Amino acid sequence: MPPPPTAALSSSSSLCLFPLSSYSSPKKTQLGFCPSFPFTRLTNFTPTRRLMTCSAVSIEKETLISHRPHTFLRETDGLDDGSVRSRFQRMIMEVQDSVCGALGAVDGAGKFKEDAWTRPGGGGGISRVLQDGDVFEKAGVNISVVYGVMPPEAYRAAKANVTDQKPGPVPFFAAGISSVLHPKNPFAPTLHFNYRYFETDAPKDAPGAPRQWWFGGGTDLTPSYIFEEDVKHFHSIQKQACDKFDPSFYPRFKKWCDDYFYIKHRDERRGLGGIFFDDLNDYDQEMLLSFATECANSVVPAYVPIVEKRKNTPFTESHKAWQQLRRGRYIEFNLVYDRGTTFGLKTGGRIESILVSLPLTARWEYDHKPEEGSEEWKLLDVCMNPKEWI
Amino acid sequence: MPPPPTAALSSSSSLCLFPLSSYSSPKKTQLGFCPSFPFTRLTNFTPTRRLMTCSAVSIEKETLISHRPHTFLRETDGLDDGSVRSRFQRMIMEVQDSVCGALGAVDGAGKFKEDAWTRPGGGGGISRVLQDGDVFEKAGVNISVVYGVMPPEAYRAAKANVTDQKPGPVPFFAAGISSVLHPKNPFAPTLHFNYRYFETDAPKDAPGAPRQWWFGGGTDLTPSYIFEEDVKHFHSIQKQACDKFDPSFYPRFKKWCDDYFYIKHRDERRGLGGIFFDDLNDYDQEMLLSFATECANSVVPAYVPIVEKRKNTPFTESHKAWQQLRRGRYIEFNLVYDRGTTFGLKTGGRIESILVSLPLTARWEYDHKPEEGSEEWKLLDVCMNPKEWI
Repeated sequence: MPPPPTAALSSSSSLCLFPLSSYSSPKKTQLGFCPSFPFTRLTNFTPTRRLMTCSAVSIEKETLISHRPHTFLRETDGLDDGSVRSRFQRMIMEVQDSVCGALGAVDGAGKFKEDAWTRPGGGGGISRVLQDGDVFEKAGVNISVVYGVMPPEAYRAAKANVTDQKPGPVPFFAAGISSVLHPKNPFAPTLHFNYRYFETDAPKDAPGAPRQWWFGGGTDLTPSYIFEEDVKHFHSIQKQACDKFDPSFYPRFKKWCDDYFYIKHRDERRGLGGIFFDDLNDYDQEMLLSFATECANSVVPAYVPIVEKRKNTPFTESHKAWQQLRRGRYIEFNLVYDRGTTFGLKTGGRIESILVSLPLTARWEYDHKPEEGSEEWKLLDVCMNPKEWI
Repeated sequence: MPPPPTAALSSSSSLCLFPLSSYSSPKKTQLGFCPSFPFTRLTNFTPTRRLMTCSAVSIEKETLISHRPHTFLRETDGLDDGSVRSRFQRMIMEVQDSVCGALGAVDGAGKFKEDAWTRPGGGGGISRVLQDGDVFEKAGVNISVVYGVMPPEAYRAAKANVTDQKPGPVPFFAAGISSVLHPKNPFAPTLHFNYRYFETDAPKDAPGAPRQWWFGGGTDLTPSYIFEEDVKHFHSIQKQACDKFDPSFYPRFKKWCDDYFYIKHRDERRGLGGIFFDDLNDYDQEMLLSFATECANSVVPAYVPIVEKRKNTPFTESHKAWQQLRRGRYIEFNLVYDRGTTFGLKTGGRIESILVSLPLTARWEYDHKPEEGSEEWKLLDVCMNPKEWI
């Protein structure tokens, strides 16, 4: 399965879909990876854009299509052949349907707008966005399938026992679902989830070299106000999903989540956590596919009852202003730290899909400090000092 | 003048004050520079924060003080001795006064809140912020003086003829004024300006090595709607300031500005430009001090007449929404690309001063495209294809 002639390195293509470490090993940094490809991109937008070049990573421009296809897999992949990539794609398509269906029912008025695209070298994606509904300010649920080529250094670092022969660029496949849901009511929390699967082929000129695969993802909750019963409910569902597979998963992935969604310059977490994992390949592959599926299917029962309960709670302007300030923090995290977002911005993924994670509105007040002991202060305290909820 | 015992590397401390290249040569990247210092910081804030450590750059925590001091210079600097550092500090203090005075008069209702701080190892700053006034949504005018120590590699790269003996860490001095002004009315443009001076001592263990200095800065305009007469007026004042010193300055610094304030992932400039320069040391030092002073003194005549003219123009909700979308772009630039902001976030500068550059409110709509030929479209077109205004 050779790379396409233009050797496109496709990127995230959707919000937070493929943090960089999914392309390399956990030890690799973004720096060792990005500068290897020349970046040439022809865009087509109103007003007229010009050819943009920089020395980063090349990516093919996506082509918007009028109807969503049955699959984004290349024909050479053997469509619906029971391979993990095929079954993972089916899973994320089904989860996109079920989550959008449930959110549409919660909102009532808002409708999802769908944009689908493909890329000439293979792969594509579907963005679904509900904006300015009755309940949701902005809700984006995206899936994406990417065929790309990674520099050999990334592959070598990921697999220690590759022969010393320098392999050529390594073709890879990645697929994922990613979503951020921002409700209007300041007592209804924001939710993010993201599940992804990554696979490399053997390098072209090192055919005996091993094939790599891994899973990543997570689901996390970002309220502006704490309702302890809501947070407990949310974490319980995450723990139930984890416990079906390994009792070590929930404590390990809960901590990973607290560590990952950390706004360093504020010394605050973005929210109240959940689960997060990346580069997971040291378990049976079928087991991890089931685990990712279980987690993705847990989104609706973990989140929908909370938003149903809080969507009509009366609130004041002051509650709304605090929610807007916390949305500002959300933006700070996503633009400054989130690996999927920052990598997507650097590599030329579909910008509108990447940045649909940002809320419709946000606010930054100079030197805002909530009054000690207030509800706002309590939220901030837990963002600074994460706790065990269950 | 040895570095303080804790060898603190102080950072920007105020919005966009010291882009990284001010610490190193234009050829240096952030990467070669940042990881050299251990980062240990003790913060003191409500709710209780814990000790934060990471392997980046060390900076001393600032101490808020109740009254602004006469100077932030170390006594060993010979206060008011006519040195460039002393005269530059006086200039930025005077400009802070005059700009805040003029803006206060334009606003009428809003008052500037002042926060002053020092750092144990020397230096400090004064933030002045007017928030939610009659005319300005948020106006921040900050000055900052920093004593720090740069890694020897940065100094060596900046000065090619340093002896091959490896010098120790190089003490440096930096001072600057930086400001972002966001009016409420969508027809009144946002303004940013920033002027800074940078000086190194000879390395401690290479006393014969040359001392380095340079100037940087700029003033740029970010409207949501184009009034050609406003943009021409603004650029004319920039050109007048430049032409007093060198006829090559305006065309060179105008292009530098268009190139710098570039949102790569959008292929858009942040606004309609102005002037920008950095690492300027290949002219007479006195001449450049006068030039920076002239530029800083041109802020009021370049900007105030425009905001006076537009501050009461009637507008619709749709005009306001477009302004809010452009504010979103402003945030994208500042958090993703601006070297002063990103460096400040990484090194632990005073966060509230760094992020006062962000507007009070902003907006992100999914896949927003202005109608071809509309006023919004015209603005976007010029952000994509910068033009000559005079």
